[in-house]
Amino acid sequence: MHFHFNLINTENHARAGEFSTPHGTILTPTFAPVGTLATVKTLTPAQLESTGANLILANTYHLFLRPGADLIAEMGGLHNFMHWDKPILTDSGGFQVFSLADMRKIDQDGVTFRSHIDGSKQRLTPEIAVQIQEKLGADIIMAFDECATPYDESYSLKAMERTHQWAVRCMNAKTREDQALFGIVQGGIFPELRKQSAEFISSVNFPGYAIGGLSVGETKVEMYQTIEIVNQILPAEKPRYLMGVGTPEDLIYGVQRGIDIFDCVLATRLARHAAALTNTGRLNLMNSKYARDPDPIEQGCSCYTCQTFSRAYIRHLIMAKETLSGTLISIHNIHMLQDLMRNIRQAILENRFKEFSQSYLSNYQYKPGVTADKILSF
Amino acid sequence: MHFHFNLINTENHARAGEFSTPHGTILTPTFAPVGTLATVKTLTPAQLESTGANLILANTYHLFLRPGADLIAEMGGLHNFMHWDKPILTDSGGFQVFSLADMRKIDQDGVTFRSHIDGSKQRLTPEIAVQIQEKLGADIIMAFDECATPYDESYSLKAMERTHQWAVRCMNAKTREDQALFGIVQGGIFPELRKQSAEFISSVNFPGYAIGGLSVGETKVEMYQTIEIVNQILPAEKPRYLMGVGTPEDLIYGVQRGIDIFDCVLATRLARHAAALTNTGRLNLMNSKYARDPDPIEQGCSCYTCQTFSRAYIRHLIMAKETLSGTLISIHNIHMLQDLMRNIRQAILENRFKEFSQSYLSNYQYKPGVTADKILSF
Repeated sequence: MHFHFNLINTENHARAGEFSTPHGTILTPTFAPVGTLATVKTLTPAQLESTGANLILANTYHLFLRPGADLIAEMGGLHNFMHWDKPILTDSGGFQVFSLADMRKIDQDGVTFRSHIDGSKQRLTPEIAVQIQEKLGADIIMAFDECATPYDESYSLKAMERTHQWAVRCMNAKTREDQALFGIVQGGIFPELRKQSAEFISSVNFPGYAIGGLSVGETKVEMYQTIEIVNQILPAEKPRYLMGVGTPEDLIYGVQRGIDIFDCVLATRLARHAAALTNTGRLNLMNSKYARDPDPIEQGCSCYTCQTFSRAYIRHLIMAKETLSGTLISIHNIHMLQDLMRNIRQAILENRFKEFSQSYLSNYQYKPGVTADKILSF
Repeated sequence: MHFHFNLINTENHARAGEFSTPHGTILTPTFAPVGTLATVKTLTPAQLESTGANLILANTYHLFLRPGADLIAEMGGLHNFMHWDKPILTDSGGFQVFSLADMRKIDQDGVTFRSHIDGSKQRLTPEIAVQIQEKLGADIIMAFDECATPYDESYSLKAMERTHQWAVRCMNAKTREDQALFGIVQGGIFPELRKQSAEFISSVNFPGYAIGGLSVGETKVEMYQTIEIVNQILPAEKPRYLMGVGTPEDLIYGVQRGIDIFDCVLATRLARHAAALTNTGRLNLMNSKYARDPDPIEQGCSCYTCQTFSRAYIRHLIMAKETLSGTLISIHNIHMLQDLMRNIRQAILENRFKEFSQSYLSNYQYKPGVTADKILSF
């Protein structure tokens, strides 16, 4: 067996576990940085490894269009191509394709769309999405799903039903034993649809399950309620992956509701726009108050950036439009989230996650003047 | 004495030496990568160190305008600000200011110019240029000189005379003992002016001498002849720095003519435009012939990039406009030039530089189909 999920401890709904893959064991809960085009933007694999990152995500849609799955297969697969020897997860391309809006046409069999790069006509079906992901060779691959806009109930129903049919087709199309195919629950923000979807997807024997269609415009409360509904149904003995979520507060709220795996572009996207994540909230390092600040981004942080550079230097790089600022802040932001996940996991293992999360959130400024624990009661 | 130049061996005009500075000894001949804005573009200091780089150059003009010399001084100087513990050289700002063309006005005392960033009125004089460089705190600082257009003899004469007066003023303005101020020889491509300038500048007791005003539009033959004329006059016991030169072939031709120190933006600028330096010529990695090429940029190269990534992967990053391509090629390009300088130095130490350079240049494609040894007879 290549894949085995071992739940080591739970505290209320929060879970600490380990998920073995052909490229090593993922300690859960875990946060996966995003390397859309076979690179976590601005970072070498060596820098990425220094952040403590383990699992990373790459995007099938983007790699399918450029450089193409055949080329990556020829180069020995994604791990070899980008030189990442730890676990990789690829999404199915569904989310990106459905984001193309009027550049795509959906039918029962799949989706025809135009490439955002050259306008060429392309097609994805559940079978093609699995085939591409088999060529890419990630450890965890995702079923081809349809992500509806959050508040459209009749479309959410249609998209969910298609997602269910496609999940079964993905399962049937899969041929590689060294990849774990995860099913995806859809259903928008509608509790009945989410229940139906969680039940159906759970009935297919996937080695892991994902919650899709969240963090796409719904409110925080709707997102957390949906996670709760779905996780009551998903089997406890399989890993649960919340797609596209990754603020510090959401990682804690997600773990509280039983999530094991997260991914998000936020850490690296913010970094390229001068914003640093810290354990007490975000810093906009472009702010002139940092111009002569000799402190690191975050006191006590052990990342390369905080061990080496002042806020003043990083702000100078930002003002001078030097891309090194993106690199340095990305290193910090990813490292900070990895540290947070390690601390969360340790707290669960020691049955003190409740205290940990309450203390963390009371110190975390969600927005200036608003602590994170005030936005929800839990 | 903070600064001592020790000539270990010479072979014809080529010299192998060592120049001690407060931040370590520079083994000469050496090539200094350029970190204009207190960063060698796209690289962390750790990555830069991995290339074998030792001396680096930063630009006074750019740092004076942004973030300002006072701020850098407040942050502990350039070494501390950018976290480079090895030797640093700053230019005087003269070259950049004179490149501003109609945005500057020269008088006997100095230059008034408008910032390329915000159009603000600024002034540099020999005294101010030294004062700024003392605040920045580099190991080697440069006299404020005037660089004329290469073919205008009457302007070259005027600029040279001003450069001489300003060299003396710089020497008088200098207060720090832990910085070596180098004088700069000007005089365009005119042998008589260059002789006059080399004689005058040599008469001022600088710890090192630079040749300015080359690689600014003159021919290769004019450049090499000028170096020969000047180096016949410059004192043998002081280091000689050829400013702004850095192709592999020019490093060899320069060393052949007695140069000890070089700097150039070429290695990193080419890297950000998809071009790799190799010991047999340049590669344009955007070329589709590299799309499925599993080889490293250069076989046998020990840099991180060549030890880790294929040309196919780097080309993919280029096509996808990922800035990591600039980082990876910069690492290779700088490493390649550092390796070349180490090999040149070793050859001089073993009295086989002539054979080394002949063999190197006969294998080096200056342009497709043209070997470097054909462009000059030497």
